[in-house]
Amino acid sequence: MNQPCTMQRPAHGGNLEWAAGVARCQPQEILDFSASINPLGPPESAIAALQAAIPSLRHYPDPSYRRLRQALADHHQLSAEWILPGNGAADLLTWAGRDLATLDCVYLCTPAFGDYRRALAAFGSRVQPWPLAWSRSGALQGEAFAVPVAATDPIEAWVQSWPPQAGCLLNDPHNPTGQRLDPRFLQACLNHFEQVVIDEAFLDFLPPADQHSAIDRIVDYPNLTVIRSLTKFYSLPGLRLGYAVAHPDHLRRWQQWRDPWAVNSLAISVGAAVMTDGAFQQRTWDWLPPARWQLFRSLQQIPVLSPIPSVSNFLLVECQASVSQLQFWLLQEARILVRDCLSFPELGDGYFRVAVLQAAQQQQLQTALSARLGLH
Amino acid sequence: MNQPCTMQRPAHGGNLEWAAGVARCQPQEILDFSASINPLGPPESAIAALQAAIPSLRHYPDPSYRRLRQALADHHQLSAEWILPGNGAADLLTWAGRDLATLDCVYLCTPAFGDYRRALAAFGSRVQPWPLAWSRSGALQGEAFAVPVAATDPIEAWVQSWPPQAGCLLNDPHNPTGQRLDPRFLQACLNHFEQVVIDEAFLDFLPPADQHSAIDRIVDYPNLTVIRSLTKFYSLPGLRLGYAVAHPDHLRRWQQWRDPWAVNSLAISVGAAVMTDGAFQQRTWDWLPPARWQLFRSLQQIPVLSPIPSVSNFLLVECQASVSQLQFWLLQEARILVRDCLSFPELGDGYFRVAVLQAAQQQQLQTALSARLGLH
Repeated sequence: MNQPCTMQRPAHGGNLEWAAGVARCQPQEILDFSASINPLGPPESAIAALQAAIPSLRHYPDPSYRRLRQALADHHQLSAEWILPGNGAADLLTWAGRDLATLDCVYLCTPAFGDYRRALAAFGSRVQPWPLAWSRSGALQGEAFAVPVAATDPIEAWVQSWPPQAGCLLNDPHNPTGQRLDPRFLQACLNHFEQVVIDEAFLDFLPPADQHSAIDRIVDYPNLTVIRSLTKFYSLPGLRLGYAVAHPDHLRRWQQWRDPWAVNSLAISVGAAVMTDGAFQQRTWDWLPPARWQLFRSLQQIPVLSPIPSVSNFLLVECQASVSQLQFWLLQEARILVRDCLSFPELGDGYFRVAVLQAAQQQQLQTALSARLGLH
Repeated sequence: MNQPCTMQRPAHGGNLEWAAGVARCQPQEILDFSASINPLGPPESAIAALQAAIPSLRHYPDPSYRRLRQALADHHQLSAEWILPGNGAADLLTWAGRDLATLDCVYLCTPAFGDYRRALAAFGSRVQPWPLAWSRSGALQGEAFAVPVAATDPIEAWVQSWPPQAGCLLNDPHNPTGQRLDPRFLQACLNHFEQVVIDEAFLDFLPPADQHSAIDRIVDYPNLTVIRSLTKFYSLPGLRLGYAVAHPDHLRRWQQWRDPWAVNSLAISVGAAVMTDGAFQQRTWDWLPPARWQLFRSLQQIPVLSPIPSVSNFLLVECQASVSQLQFWLLQEARILVRDCLSFPELGDGYFRVAVLQAAQQQQLQTALSARLGLH
């Protein structure tokens, strides 16, 4: 079955057009485990806000995003000037990449979400890969940490080897391993680097008491930029909405670079609405840990698979068979899309990533995987 | 009445949040002549496509924009790789600005839409203003031309004075004058400059036989980039949608810089739908010329106002009274917003711009203006 392997694979999850081509079906017939989107959403509050905002499409979005900024600022107990909404987190990563390119070098924890390399390459950053070690056996929640491999030395000594005029781009929880970064490592980065950019795209899947967001320290570290996404937790990646939290001077510079109407009017209204949807948030926090545990256990029952503990809404899975062949088989035989890891050079054909979905969907995945790979 | 003049004025039209603050009312109560948006829209086809696409928000947009690119390519009889959709024309201007910044200098026809200066400054372009002369007495359609003032010399001799390694950013029809650029001038630019960027945001308000878009010449000029908007003609500026037409190599470079999901899923679906809505297009082309003539005549009847002929859906109006005071009066007494020209330094307080709207709305404007300024 060589032919499908020569088709151009997408570099990101969630590419249903490509998957539908392989599976020879409509995109909406694909069961998508490849994009890490909350299966409980979008919340009714989001759709209601979207519908109510349709008449406002006749007008330009408010370029100061006053209402949305205030809703986000209230949530983080900050003043609104510390917040800048973006056309998805990827829009904001572009401008973070431009900032980082002014430094002598940028450390990038690897394996890294592919769009980081795009944003860093766009402005010619000199990237220094920082290979992560992560726990394959840690607890499922809160105790597993991803750390750069050199950090197995005492962190204080290791920091001395970092160059001046450098920055780093971190991801917490880390994608695709689903682990938290070691907080001592984060602190060392904040103390040392000229610029620290932290992508917390998946952090809101943790309940507030467990989040320990770097946003809590934003006022003390003018070298810190935190990027958040609103479309994974609220299941609206097609709408495009994220935000950056950083020193106001920093965000004003981005606004001078970026077009004034980057965020569409529907996203503005939806963003302001969902921030106060406590019922949906709580439902997600209640659902995730047992659903993730069910998925983890079901994958463990398949002999060639080793799922890695995760605090987030996805699991990275080590696979002793060829993932690219498995991926095509799942598409063609079961219309199930898993995220191959070929775009992460450090992982390659021996890993895949799956989102935590609803119990029935996870059962479909297990049935298909065990049909192909067998059960213990 | 000094107090309102100290409030921070928006640099663009259509800022209803600001206007509502001045008028002490809700944004939706403002009659907005400041944003040049088609009052016949949005078409039903757009709203139907948007509603049908809401379930697709759970998935990422197709980063290749295959369906939308094909619809636009069919319209222009090009192959899809010559087209790149953007998150509004302003998103695409950002990347055009980055290209232009690689040149020794960029000619910018002035007065110029404020966002051009943002996009050029974002990447440090060296901007050479090119003051335009425009016809105050030409015919209302097709015969009035805006030309840089030095072009009153024979164009061939004038071109010799242009430096090598330079580019230009043009706007046809020109905003805010509403006039076409002289086609001999456009041709000289295409022959001479390393890069020619033409913003045709308002060109689709002309019927196809009158458009003479630079896109017709795109295949012959690899130095040409045309930027189009879909949200003015189809009345959806809040949705954000535009596209660039240029050589595929050029657009591929932009895609490497830009985030892969720049255009939201609703805009993708709406864009593909409206391109084939011939009934709405024809209705707009039938409506505009008499409506514009009515507005022109009604403004001419006010002694201190001199409207300038326009081929587009807005009129620039010379005013012998202070426009900033007039603008505040119109907001506070009639909840009508006109576009002051303070952000165009070449025009200042002696001009304003108004969109062509429905007859009843234009009557409201004339009533308010004549109450303030008197009638002939």
